Amino acid sequence: MSYHIAVDLGGTQIRAALYPTGTQQPEKLERISTHSAGEMPLARLLDLITAIYPTRDQLLGIGVSAPGPLDPFSGTILTAPNVKGFSNLPLRKIIAEHFGVPVAVGNDANMAALAEWKYGAGQGFHNLIYMTISTGIGGGVILDDRLVLGERGLATELGHVTVQPDGPLCPCGQYGHLEAVAAGPAIAKWAEAQIKSGETSCLPAGQPLTAKSVGEAANSGDRLAIGALEHAGHWIGLALANYLHIFNPAAIVLGGGVTRSGEYLLGPLRQALKKYALSEYYLDGLTLVTATLGDEVGLTGALILARELDAESYFQKPINTTKTL
Amino acid sequence: MSYHIAVDLGGTQIRAALYPTGTQQPEKLERISTHSAGEMPLARLLDLITAIYPTRDQLLGIGVSAPGPLDPFSGTILTAPNVKGFSNLPLRKIIAEHFGVPVAVGNDANMAALAEWKYGAGQGFHNLIYMTISTGIGGGVILDDRLVLGERGLATELGHVTVQPDGPLCPCGQYGHLEAVAAGPAIAKWAEAQIKSGETSCLPAGQPLTAKSVGEAANSGDRLAIGALEHAGHWIGLALANYLHIFNPAAIVLGGGVTRSGEYLLGPLRQALKKYALSEYYLDGLTLVTATLGDEVGLTGALILARELDAESYFQKPINTTKTL
Repeated sequence: MSYHIAVDLGGTQIRAALYPTGTQQPEKLERISTHSAGEMPLARLLDLITAIYPTRDQLLGIGVSAPGPLDPFSGTILTAPNVKGFSNLPLRKIIAEHFGVPVAVGNDANMAALAEWKYGAGQGFHNLIYMTISTGIGGGVILDDRLVLGERGLATELGHVTVQPDGPLCPCGQYGHLEAVAAGPAIAKWAEAQIKSGETSCLPAGQPLTAKSVGEAANSGDRLAIGALEHAGHWIGLALANYLHIFNPAAIVLGGGVTRSGEYLLGPLRQALKKYALSEYYLDGLTLVTATLGDEVGLTGALILARELDAESYFQKPINTTKTL
Repeated sequence: MSYHIAVDLGGTQIRAALYPTGTQQPEKLERISTHSAGEMPLARLLDLITAIYPTRDQLLGIGVSAPGPLDPFSGTILTAPNVKGFSNLPLRKIIAEHFGVPVAVGNDANMAALAEWKYGAGQGFHNLIYMTISTGIGGGVILDDRLVLGERGLATELGHVTVQPDGPLCPCGQYGHLEAVAAGPAIAKWAEAQIKSGETSCLPAGQPLTAKSVGEAANSGDRLAIGALEHAGHWIGLALANYLHIFNPAAIVLGGGVTRSGEYLLGPLRQALKKYALSEYYLDGLTLVTATLGDEVGLTGALILARELDAESYFQKPINTTKTL
């Protein structure tokens, strides 16, 4: 029997699972918190892999979904502010040398895109955009059945495009990025500002809100909360219209916690997508769906990546130097 | 001896050239105006190809660069407002049936991108963005040595993204697109508006300007004209910074008449690119150059397309249905 190990590394927890060849059902699945007093996240990650490592059987490879920016060709984390010690860290090399098996490391949003495309809401499409809307806005794009990576694997930062040149500060330091206007914290801030300016709402005044509490208030009919989700949906729809012109996908898959707000967000999003699309050619036959893999998406993406190590893949190999169309 | 024919179809003129295999030097090159009283552009195009058609030797294929939007997989022009009769026109089929040889049709901005990548300023790069700035703003993107097309071949409309949500009307009918803010006509309009509002300039008041006249005035030191080019350069730079985050290219190649304004445009463009880039990872080693093929770019792109017809190419073939990373 042969196996692959998939690891989903996040700022809060690390999950690792052992998959027998030929199935997406893990034989073992463990999770631990990323940070713990007296132990670095890297040591915890190696321990977690050891804990599920197959004893007698062959391990073919390990795939890791990690926060970015990272270089997927070398498997180096460039910066990961949410994980202690993960700065200029050659994670692929460290894990490969520790366990003596092939290892691949991919950006978490890209791995989620791969997972939704192969096993989730994006199955069967050749060209798709995956966007995740939660604490931040990230993405991954499949074009002609290949994941878009760019020169250093840093492409498809779909939340970091300017939609409001004079808009709010983005966590990245720029202004008016889609993430700063429409991610979870932006939805909460928009609602807070409206309440502060005297608008009525069932949401509490003068204290920090979350996108989740705004979503719940919207569900109970609160007009201000509904307005906050409409506002975010509108701007995401405008950005997605631009992405139609840029990528011309057959499908858009939306993931992340904020999409649980459902039609309060998706209705205005769909409306804006139609309003701002250049022509009907981009909308004809376009599929817009929400992600289906839930919390499993990171592990599933890492599993796909691990299994690709066996195949002839352009991912994490030197880019070929012959030119074809 | 065997040949390919390349055709560059524009709103003003049609150019066609005959290329012997193994060279980029045409043996014959003819040009005519696209429109003429009493004759449709399609008939003129077929006549022009006939005029340079090799008499005894073998023609291997014909490549056509045409204005979009068009479907490059079927070779159908969807709409081309500047060419009479070119609406829902199966151009590939018509030419192929007329001459009995393989034919391929590609979008003019995409063909220019191909040409600059294979024989121009973009040689040697695996990931590049080509942007042309003239009457409109168009583009083409090469990722991992492949032209980005999308589901229906309508991708990389780089001028049609919103950079100013409340900005000027774009010829496409949307507001605040990059094209509406920074293409040639937008530069002229910006200068006209400044003059109308009382700003001093050597440019004439109360009459229509062109980007060319603004460029000339800038060269003679006119501060208002310089300001108009700075304004355009700034917004193009901001949009290109977004494209760094989206495509992570190794090179940006800028073409089109407006780039002849040189540093008046490119200086502010470069500054904005640096200012708005998410991190140094996107700028490290990035090459920013102007196009080198000049007026030949359309014919050269069409030639590459024609020659690809011989090879195994994903372009203008059914998209394969097996999934690879």
